[in-house]
Amino acid sequence: MKIAIQGIKGSYHHEVAGNIFGDNIELLECDNFSEIPPLLVNKKADKAVMAIENTIAGAILPNYALIDEYKLQICGEYYLPIHHQLLALKGQSLDDIKEIRSHPMALEQCRKFFRDYPQIKLIEEKDTAKVAKEIQEKQQFGIAAIASKIATKIYDLEIIADEIQTNKANYTRFVIIAVKNGNTPENYNKASIKFRLNHETGSLLEILQIFKDNDLNMSKIQSLPIVEKPWEYAFFVDVIFDSPKQFENTIEKVRNHVNELKILGKYRSNKLI
Amino acid sequence: MKIAIQGIKGSYHHEVAGNIFGDNIELLECDNFSEIPPLLVNKKADKAVMAIENTIAGAILPNYALIDEYKLQICGEYYLPIHHQLLALKGQSLDDIKEIRSHPMALEQCRKFFRDYPQIKLIEEKDTAKVAKEIQEKQQFGIAAIASKIATKIYDLEIIADEIQTNKANYTRFVIIAVKNGNTPENYNKASIKFRLNHETGSLLEILQIFKDNDLNMSKIQSLPIVEKPWEYAFFVDVIFDSPKQFENTIEKVRNHVNELKILGKYRSNKLI
Repeated sequence: MKIAIQGIKGSYHHEVAGNIFGDNIELLECDNFSEIPPLLVNKKADKAVMAIENTIAGAILPNYALIDEYKLQICGEYYLPIHHQLLALKGQSLDDIKEIRSHPMALEQCRKFFRDYPQIKLIEEKDTAKVAKEIQEKQQFGIAAIASKIATKIYDLEIIADEIQTNKANYTRFVIIAVKNGNTPENYNKASIKFRLNHETGSLLEILQIFKDNDLNMSKIQSLPIVEKPWEYAFFVDVIFDSPKQFENTIEKVRNHVNELKILGKYRSNKLI
Repeated sequence: MKIAIQGIKGSYHHEVAGNIFGDNIELLECDNFSEIPPLLVNKKADKAVMAIENTIAGAILPNYALIDEYKLQICGEYYLPIHHQLLALKGQSLDDIKEIRSHPMALEQCRKFFRDYPQIKLIEEKDTAKVAKEIQEKQQFGIAAIASKIATKIYDLEIIADEIQTNKANYTRFVIIAVKNGNTPENYNKASIKFRLNHETGSLLEILQIFKDNDLNMSKIQSLPIVEKPWEYAFFVDVIFDSPKQFENTIEKVRNHVNELKILGKYRSNKLI
């Protein structure tokens, strides 16, 4: 099975791909999220794993746009609890570290830990695992990466500080995406939808009333102005329900009240561990 | 007047600060958004300008968190239409360019333009204006920056391609922030609020019904799970209204239906140009 991910071996995307599909996968490493959809469309990848939401920045809307634009579907989700480690070349301790390089979000998630080490310089890099790889390849003493436990093994580094994330309950939500084929998992109980509404007091209220009347529980809502149409808004909504039938019936009622409705995916909810 | 911004002279933040406060300001350049609040709290800056939302990525929630955490207030907003130019050392044309360096969001906003120039390498950098500055300082021929028109003047560069953004109607929304002092602009007609709700079907519906009954129009809504409290959600909402009294009366009613309510700012709406 060929799985496209953002980042390289040892990244959090890799960790999620392994947790879902096991070790027997071929990994297609992408530099950017936007490289992923063409791999699916051109059948070079069977599925892809993509971060879609975290507890600090909220939803990653450009990734929703990619799913929409390339007519892909969300076929599953995965909540990865955030566990950050500080990795460095073996034989070093925290006192040896002069610089920490990582993704801005990882640096942000460990902000409180760094307050105790004001002498360490923080450098933003694009890829958590790439920093780990470079530390090993270029034998960079004095530099540490914030990365996953699998990066420790892959790049033969040492954990010099464990669980350094500020909020121990943080997580990142990933989605599994594939080309749209009409197949949905049996007994799906969650869906991601996008719809457009006129900017009128109460237009969203109508939709939420339909959800409530049909016992659909909303687990996420986000509005986005539509620049080409100043009086319309797009809404990205996730709903949870008991049965596919309940969802399908409800969505038919919603369809009459919105300007456009797209179903980005129907899948099994992966509750937080 | 001392104004803190993210980025350096010639950045889009600088452009906004100039448009609001004029040229007679002292600019405090910050490397990161998180450097801004301490400058306000320690009275080193009078006000700050901070990007808060754009039409591709939506709201920048970590910036809302900074406003909340440091007990600051939003005292105004500014919509900046996105106009991206390609800047390079004088005497060059597009054919001379081998590399474009800019902020990931600026690169994303010009994606369609680059499709016609597959030979040009795109490199992500943190600061649009810093790239322009370095091109001049280090006399980097063959490299171009995506930046604002004021960067052209400040760093003495040439515009080699104009208005290269894909969507001509794109904008970034900025907020003006200051320490909380109880002062609000007379006749404010917009407010940014944050509230917490239990994750129950219909709990948000109640709030939207109160907004509707009182003619408050919602211009933005975004939910964020609260990791420490798995059954609660935080909502970031902007509302527009006719009079301060209308807002104050409504918000008193809302207060009884939410777990916590914070008013992040009351200000005059700055309609899109």
